[in-house]
Amino acid sequence: MNPNLKESEELASFGTYLSKIDSPEDLRKFSIEELPAIAQECRELVIDAVSKNGGHFGSSLGVAELSVALHYAYNTPKDQIIWDVGHQAYVHKILTGRKNFFYSNRKYGGVSGFPKRAESCYDAFGVGHASTSISAATGMAAARDLAHEDFKVVAVIGDGSMTGGMAFEGMNHLGHLKTDVTVILNDNRMSIDPNVGGLREYLTDITTNFTYNKIRRDIWQTLSKFDNEIGSTARRLVRGIEDGLKAALTPGSYFEALGFRYFGPIDGHDVGHLARVLTEIRGLPHPKLLHIVTVKGKGFAPAEANQSKWHAQSGAFDKVTGVSLKKADPNAAPKYQDVFGDAITKIAGKDQRVVGVTAAMPSGTSLKKLGEKYPERFFDVGIAEPHAVTFAAGMAVHGFKPVCAIYSTFLQRAYDQIIHDVALQKLNVIFAIDRAGLVGADGPTHHGVFDLSFLRMIPNMVVMAPMHEQELCDMLLTAVKYENGPVAVRYPRGNGLGMALQEFKQLPIGKGEVLRDGEEIAILGIGLMSNVALEAAALLEAQGVSPLVANMRFVKPIDTELLDAICARFDRIVTIEENTVIGGFGSAVCEYLQEKGHRNRVLTLGIPDRFIEHGSVADLHREIGLDAQGVVKRILEFAHSEDIVAM
Amino acid sequence: MNPNLKESEELASFGTYLSKIDSPEDLRKFSIEELPAIAQECRELVIDAVSKNGGHFGSSLGVAELSVALHYAYNTPKDQIIWDVGHQAYVHKILTGRKNFFYSNRKYGGVSGFPKRAESCYDAFGVGHASTSISAATGMAAARDLAHEDFKVVAVIGDGSMTGGMAFEGMNHLGHLKTDVTVILNDNRMSIDPNVGGLREYLTDITTNFTYNKIRRDIWQTLSKFDNEIGSTARRLVRGIEDGLKAALTPGSYFEALGFRYFGPIDGHDVGHLARVLTEIRGLPHPKLLHIVTVKGKGFAPAEANQSKWHAQSGAFDKVTGVSLKKADPNAAPKYQDVFGDAITKIAGKDQRVVGVTAAMPSGTSLKKLGEKYPERFFDVGIAEPHAVTFAAGMAVHGFKPVCAIYSTFLQRAYDQIIHDVALQKLNVIFAIDRAGLVGADGPTHHGVFDLSFLRMIPNMVVMAPMHEQELCDMLLTAVKYENGPVAVRYPRGNGLGMALQEFKQLPIGKGEVLRDGEEIAILGIGLMSNVALEAAALLEAQGVSPLVANMRFVKPIDTELLDAICARFDRIVTIEENTVIGGFGSAVCEYLQEKGHRNRVLTLGIPDRFIEHGSVADLHREIGLDAQGVVKRILEFAHSEDIVAM
Repeated sequence: MNPNLKESEELASFGTYLSKIDSPEDLRKFSIEELPAIAQECRELVIDAVSKNGGHFGSSLGVAELSVALHYAYNTPKDQIIWDVGHQAYVHKILTGRKNFFYSNRKYGGVSGFPKRAESCYDAFGVGHASTSISAATGMAAARDLAHEDFKVVAVIGDGSMTGGMAFEGMNHLGHLKTDVTVILNDNRMSIDPNVGGLREYLTDITTNFTYNKIRRDIWQTLSKFDNEIGSTARRLVRGIEDGLKAALTPGSYFEALGFRYFGPIDGHDVGHLARVLTEIRGLPHPKLLHIVTVKGKGFAPAEANQSKWHAQSGAFDKVTGVSLKKADPNAAPKYQDVFGDAITKIAGKDQRVVGVTAAMPSGTSLKKLGEKYPERFFDVGIAEPHAVTFAAGMAVHGFKPVCAIYSTFLQRAYDQIIHDVALQKLNVIFAIDRAGLVGADGPTHHGVFDLSFLRMIPNMVVMAPMHEQELCDMLLTAVKYENGPVAVRYPRGNGLGMALQEFKQLPIGKGEVLRDGEEIAILGIGLMSNVALEAAALLEAQGVSPLVANMRFVKPIDTELLDAICARFDRIVTIEENTVIGGFGSAVCEYLQEKGHRNRVLTLGIPDRFIEHGSVADLHREIGLDAQGVVKRILEFAHSEDIVAM
Repeated sequence: MNPNLKESEELASFGTYLSKIDSPEDLRKFSIEELPAIAQECRELVIDAVSKNGGHFGSSLGVAELSVALHYAYNTPKDQIIWDVGHQAYVHKILTGRKNFFYSNRKYGGVSGFPKRAESCYDAFGVGHASTSISAATGMAAARDLAHEDFKVVAVIGDGSMTGGMAFEGMNHLGHLKTDVTVILNDNRMSIDPNVGGLREYLTDITTNFTYNKIRRDIWQTLSKFDNEIGSTARRLVRGIEDGLKAALTPGSYFEALGFRYFGPIDGHDVGHLARVLTEIRGLPHPKLLHIVTVKGKGFAPAEANQSKWHAQSGAFDKVTGVSLKKADPNAAPKYQDVFGDAITKIAGKDQRVVGVTAAMPSGTSLKKLGEKYPERFFDVGIAEPHAVTFAAGMAVHGFKPVCAIYSTFLQRAYDQIIHDVALQKLNVIFAIDRAGLVGADGPTHHGVFDLSFLRMIPNMVVMAPMHEQELCDMLLTAVKYENGPVAVRYPRGNGLGMALQEFKQLPIGKGEVLRDGEEIAILGIGLMSNVALEAAALLEAQGVSPLVANMRFVKPIDTELLDAICARFDRIVTIEENTVIGGFGSAVCEYLQEKGHRNRVLTLGIPDRFIEHGSVADLHREIGLDAQGVVKRILEFAHSEDIVAM
């Protein structure tokens, strides 16, 4: 285990069983009859910890029994368990030596909210994004076979993640390789919000038909009677019918078409039965899928009743009633996602061409506000960002203005579609990029710190970022009014500044604004960092340095007129962005200065060239020097540094 | 139609029918009995044109009948036909007003080798990459329904493209929307090379069973007899069995699980039957899939016999025998792809950890050379780049050194997987990025001009590009020996310099080399452009300017020591790369200079910030000033330009 892991400040009191379980090996010493009690103790620990500190919730409760059964039936850590997405792995973490650390979950320096190879040898593969588990499992199985090793590989994937095309690609390849991998389909009919898709309806159709097993038995009794009468031809035919029946009466045919043996559906909360079934199928030497049905939030009534709301909790709550213990601040500024949701709904009210597209994130992006008002103009396509973007392109061809609301980190999934299907055809698709910048507790798999760079290089793109709520609204209006190709608006997680909103106004494309005039040095901000630039300027003022601060608004096209004017007055320029310093906003400034022939010096502040861990955004900003104090320190160093004088 | 389209230099002589067909409307005046002759005339035109000029081949021959039947049965251009990938759309182009231009196919200024919205209103959606058609079709259908319009949408997709996860995502969403879209599954058992995957085997199992219709009839006759005897319970059971039979005896169950009505499989070369079936199912108001079986290369014996080889032809051939008319140059330098294939096979011979991963491109990447020698260490995962990369990550976890050989433009599909599954976990995956830079006749959908930028910004990545064959081999060895995370080696399409290969040697990470010393100005090249830098230097020499030329080899980490030394000696520096000038190699140089405090001037040459059309690479280089003459011109301007002097 990672020796740097921070112990929990709270001390947990463990139940009878859990106090004796420090590893899966300890778990395996208990009898199968004791597993329900163990699962229940794990569940209670999760409820207690999350009720105090927040975190993902419903998914881990849903797989408490599965987690216990897997570590009971498999020889972990030699056998490899890969949790798709990974926010359901809390019980797994508790069982694998991290129960003493569990109250530090998602805190700076504490346990990660997702499986992470650097944290534990039981975390077979680092996860965070959906639909990767089958691909990773297939790779591990191929490695095992090639090295003539002997271990098992299990991928645990929800029905939501199954809507991601990559899961299909993995199954299709695994079906071809025909090697030993077990896929557990954890079917709870949910992504974060209710799951959608043709496959979803198919699975529901069948699993809700509780009599299917009985019908199958009846048919077989009937057919076997005729078998004797018809003779050998009929026997051959009946064997064909057997497959057909299986296909018709279980959800297996979809998976069997891909080369899997299908088992299930079974109750995912009967831990004893689960452990027995897993032990039975463990030895089968080919791809197999076990379909289990679970309830998200199982064992915590409020979470079972409102599964979307209880997917994750940001603050403390009463662990019996579920009532929030976080004092609601009546003056709290609205979240950016809600400002977006309200604004785009308002704009859509005036422009019939506006439609919303989300990849399984109607709540997380607040695009559901549009969906509630204009349900026919709202499309949830499932966890399927590549499809979402090309679907939007198809709508744009026919005159609509699709707004794809996707988190920055997940938009990476659709990079080719943005280039090839949208930008190349100069289609009017709007990318509303939520959770851009550091996201905090979700950590490195979820930080959105590459988008300014990966979007800026695409021809025909307009890329902007607001410094506050009003600008977000103005930029959304500007994007909808723009008729010359794709537009990206990226905005952060968390709360706005709390300003009163004015009427939305269209912004001139590619124009920034000077927020305060100054001398000696100029600070150019983009997005939220324009506020940090102002803060830093105030602190610098106190030290006798009075910088100009500009809010550039657009990374592409960049305001060259403003840059020329600034270059003419200020030798030294600082750029500040919540995006990697490689290829982003600061880089755009450097490129333009060289192109134009300005010899000014530029200091580019932003996310350094490494993956940033989890923790509060404030902690992380401090760590990388993107808080006002850090910015001031670096600006003073820069202002006093000497050039390298050559020649 | 695009008024700038260049007419063919060759004049075609059209057959009896085709001479009268200038649009699908003309086609629809003929009787259904005349369609076979029309399809044949189209096929002959394709054979004639490709035999003279090269181009994609087998796919268009395979869908000659389908193309005719679609434009006959549907009311194009109002009805929207979307060709997945689009290299099979030659007959479509011929029928839709472009027969007179067809001999300019893929030439500079001529007809594009792919459907392209700017070229014709019959090209409903621009394509080039695989698996996008169902998503675009679904978007168009949603737009139609929302606008209460009345047109049909058809997506034509091969079984190869069906292995792409995006096709699954599109079907899953369409099955949920339940609206009127027709998907034609063109099943020819091929991608460019033979298609792979569990689904492929499932489709083959069934479609190769030519007696399935007969068996189904037999079973029904048998069952209907018993039906009377058993009574009403049995009738209900038998209805269940009917679905089961359909599932067992046709490949439909897979698609029906996703919410489609399935029709087929039918013979895709019986154009009359095709037109009738299309007309019949056209009116059904829900998602439906028509499964047709075709032969790639149909009607041209050599192409039917060797489908991979005849996927595309680069030069002229005898249109009866198929014998190449291009004089084989015994001194021709090997292609970069073959240098790669040979080198990685050689390296794999000494290092058991090396495995190869391709996404349906064993021939195109020449990774099949590794597969021929070490079949157990070769993995073709289908058209599934996202899975390919995460599969490789899974193998890397268990100590292997996977080499993912993927074209630059297709690697965009796996961007998130590179960041989230490979780089974040610092896994030793090697990206062998073929077709990097401009690719020529395939045009904007296939140019690989973003990779240096989108890879450079990823933490933990090493990014390099060779200037010639020897360096490619050395870099591959260096990548395999590197133990500290992912490495990308990007190299171009086409032939090498023809140098004799020496023993491979390991290169120091992050170190470039000076190719020629000079004065006044320094030119820093990366990859193939280091050769152009040398050429330009020789031309400049003749004009009295003697530049230093360095081959930087690494874009990341960049050789800061060499940059410092060059900055100290040369005020003006030119960078040259076959990659967008935004965020790429030149940008890395600008960033470093600012970071270190150098005030040198930099001119960044590369691909300008727009999509580049199709044509020969030489034509395109001339157009954008990346040929030696263009480079010289711009360097001289730069050398004599004045700074903007501020302050």
